[in-house]
Amino acid sequence: MLIVFTGNGKGKTTAAIGQAIRALGHNKRVLVIQFIKGPWKSGEHEFAEKIPVGLRKKFQIIKTGKGFVGILGDKFPISEHKKAAQSSLKLAEKEIKSGKWDLVILDEINVAVGLRLINVGEVLKILENRQRKSASMDVILTGRDAPESFIKVADLATEMKEIKHPFQKGKAAKAAVEF
Amino acid sequence: MLIVFTGNGKGKTTAAIGQAIRALGHNKRVLVIQFIKGPWKSGEHEFAEKIPVGLRKKFQIIKTGKGFVGILGDKFPISEHKKAAQSSLKLAEKEIKSGKWDLVILDEINVAVGLRLINVGEVLKILENRQRKSASMDVILTGRDAPESFIKVADLATEMKEIKHPFQKGKAAKAAVEF
Repeated sequence: MLIVFTGNGKGKTTAAIGQAIRALGHNKRVLVIQFIKGPWKSGEHEFAEKIPVGLRKKFQIIKTGKGFVGILGDKFPISEHKKAAQSSLKLAEKEIKSGKWDLVILDEINVAVGLRLINVGEVLKILENRQRKSASMDVILTGRDAPESFIKVADLATEMKEIKHPFQKGKAAKAAVEF
Repeated sequence: MLIVFTGNGKGKTTAAIGQAIRALGHNKRVLVIQFIKGPWKSGEHEFAEKIPVGLRKKFQIIKTGKGFVGILGDKFPISEHKKAAQSSLKLAEKEIKSGKWDLVILDEINVAVGLRLINVGEVLKILENRQRKSASMDVILTGRDAPESFIKVADLATEMKEIKHPFQKGKAAKAAVEF
C-alpha cells in the first residue's frame, strides 16, 4: 500500500510512527527516512534507542536534511538543502530497492517536493519501480501540501486538517508533544 | 494539553500511538484505554509485549469494551455495550486521578460518546478535574465525530479527513496496516 498523510494539522508524522509501531508488532521491518528535520533529537529517536537490539534492527530511523528551510535559524543556502534532499532521495531509492523493509516511511517528503528540493517525477519513478519489485512493501509519504500526483497514485490518503492549535492561544510547544 | 484527533480518515489512533512513542522517548509514562475494540490483538498490543519490562511498565494499553457496536458480528445488546463503556470511563477517571501517568489516551472515546454509551458531561467533568489536579498531564481523545464540547475545551484538535481509502477500490484490509 502507498499511504499519504498530508494537511496543515498535527498528526502526520505521529500517524506514520504509530503505523510503524503496529507493523513492528506484526514482526515487520520498518525504515523511517526523515527528509527535513532539525538538529535536535526527537522522541521517536530516543525511543528507538530504548528498545532491545533485536527489535532495533527492525526499526531504523535515519535523519537527513539540513533542518528547516528558509526560516529563522536556517544557516544554509538553498543549494545545500537541495543537495541534502537529493542524497536523502538516493538513500530512499536504494533502501526501497534492497527489499529489506516491509514499511518505508518517507517523512516530510511532501514538503521537500513542495520546496522544489527534489523532483516529483523522480519520486514517482521510485514508487513505481517499487511496485514492480515488491508489491507487499508499504510506503508512507508525509508532509503538508502533498502534490496531487502523490494522491493520485496512493491507495490511501488522509488530510490532517487543523481545527485548533495551541500556538493560536500563544502557548509554547511542549517538548514531549511537539517533537 | 488536551488533544483531539477526529474525522472520518485513517490516522487518528495511529497518531495517538505515535504521540505515545514520542512521550516514551522522553521517559514519560503512557496509558492507553481503548474504548471500542474488537477481540483481536492489534499491532500496538503485540508491540507492547516485545519491549523490555522496564519500558513496558511505562506503556500500558488496556483494551475495554465489547467490540464494534451494532454492526455485523455484534452479539451484544446495547445495554451491554453501555455497561462496558461506563466501566471503561470509571477506569479512565481512576487512572487520571492517580497521577501515575504523563499521557493518557482515551482511544475511540468520541465514538463511545456519539453512540451514547457514555455521557459527554461526565467526560468533561473528568477532564476538568484532571486540570485542577495535574496541569502537566496530557490527554488525547480519539474517534470520529468528536462532540463540539470536546473541541471547545481542547488545546489542539486535528480532523483526519479521508481523501482516499483502499476500501473504495475494493481491496481487503491488510493486517499490519489496519489493526
